[in-house]
Amino acid sequence: MNLLDLAKKRKTVRKFKKETPDIEDIKYAINVAKEAPSGKNDQPWHFVLISKKEDKEKIREICEKGEKQFYENSKGELREWLEKMGFTWKKPFLSEAPFLLFVYSHIKSPFSRESVWLSIGYLLLALEERGLGTVTYTPANFKDVSDYVGLPKEYRLEVILPIGYPDDSKPKYDRKSLDEILTI
Amino acid sequence: MNLLDLAKKRKTVRKFKKETPDIEDIKYAINVAKEAPSGKNDQPWHFVLISKKEDKEKIREICEKGEKQFYENSKGELREWLEKMGFTWKKPFLSEAPFLLFVYSHIKSPFSRESVWLSIGYLLLALEERGLGTVTYTPANFKDVSDYVGLPKEYRLEVILPIGYPDDSKPKYDRKSLDEILTI
Repeated sequence: MNLLDLAKKRKTVRKFKKETPDIEDIKYAINVAKEAPSGKNDQPWHFVLISKKEDKEKIREICEKGEKQFYENSKGELREWLEKMGFTWKKPFLSEAPFLLFVYSHIKSPFSRESVWLSIGYLLLALEERGLGTVTYTPANFKDVSDYVGLPKEYRLEVILPIGYPDDSKPKYDRKSLDEILTI
Repeated sequence: MNLLDLAKKRKTVRKFKKETPDIEDIKYAINVAKEAPSGKNDQPWHFVLISKKEDKEKIREICEKGEKQFYENSKGELREWLEKMGFTWKKPFLSEAPFLLFVYSHIKSPFSRESVWLSIGYLLLALEERGLGTVTYTPANFKDVSDYVGLPKEYRLEVILPIGYPDDSKPKYDRKSLDEILTI
């Protein structure tokens, strides 16, 4: 399979099968991610993999508290979009996914945020290659959830990736045409 | 070839062969990149592909002006690293690469910077798959070079990707081990 097929096949997954994937597949994806380039080759990424039921439930509880507040405060175009998409403050995938992968960036590295998100691009494709699904979940209250996990010193939480075998019937969202996004 | 092999093979390239690649290969890589997920599915990326000799020379001139100032002002650990790596303010790849791909993010989209850099991860792997090399070049003076190209309205320049067939003997920089970057 070429990369275009893989990238087209890959969609956001918020529902997961109960079956726990082999942890080696997640390590594989991180091994791919760490090959990404980075500012000053600092490799400013750190990953924390969580699988304990109690931890996931507590993380879900903390995140949903932040989400409730976010939904209460959201208005205008964003609120309409959230409603249209059927999103609510409930984030069951945080406790239902077999794994939660926390991705951090080193705050003092040059272009650390950019480098880490570039590596997340590598990571998502590698998960897809291994038949695993995820969603780039960015909590409304980064600090609260970071404090619970015990943020590595000098690192900033960028995203939580719930990982498991896909069980989500939602189709992939449409993409713009090449003409719309490329000027030659 | 699996993704891990592709990612391991991919290294930063600053020297290019004179031969001009098929523009379809670059379009292929952008087609891969645009499959990436993004905040609110806004697809906040825009690409501008430049190949005219005069444009590339002017862009190099503008960027090198910014680089000279950056090198004069850099000190401490950063300066030592730059010297150790043999980097200078000269950026010949900006005029020598057959193509310069400017990548922009929409300033009003949620998580636009994160989304665009994630898509750049897709893009780099797709270029590698097609045998093309690049470097994620971030100019010291974003504004000056953006003004020359004619920044799309409400978009911010994230990176310039010089693209061509690799002709760079520098080896890939080492990567940390999995144990160093993963906490389970």
